Amino acid sequence: MTYTVQIKVMPLKELLDPQGKAVKSSLESLGLEGIEDVRIGKNITLQIEAGDPAQAKQIAEDASKKLLANPVMEYFEINVN
Amino acid sequence: MTYTVQIKVMPLKELLDPQGKAVKSSLESLGLEGIEDVRIGKNITLQIEAGDPAQAKQIAEDASKKLLANPVMEYFEINVN
Repeated sequence: MTYTVQIKVMPLKELLDPQGKAVKSSLESLGLEGIEDVRIGKNITLQIEAGDPAQAKQIAEDASKKLLANPVMEYFEINVN
Repeated sequence: MTYTVQIKVMPLKELLDPQGKAVKSSLESLGLEGIEDVRIGKNITLQIEAGDPAQAKQIAEDASKKLLANPVMEYFEINVN
């Protein structure tokens, strides 16, 4: 069966996110109020052919560790649908 | 109250995603099997000070339309926590 797996890769909470900071100030320049913090990461959608959801999650975790996320600067979360 | 709002910005389904295609072939080179499709977009986390969740969502929608997503190439989804 084919599972849709979402991987969210975000900058570690301890680190500054200069891209997010730039977007925050742009949003303020555009007149949007109430935005206190912006952090920007990646969202990766995989279609994985696997026997069960646990196996699909395992493949996504391998992919994240080997290629998609840099553990020095990022953490990732996996959701299988 | 401060709401955490997640905005997922992804390439439109009708369009090719060359970045996703490149990642797919890299994952195959790494020996990961079963991955049939990869699409890559952005995930933006906002902290929004607002009166209620609907107002926070409205601010996030304005931000997406004005700056975060390019409607010619991308669609967005908003989740308020």
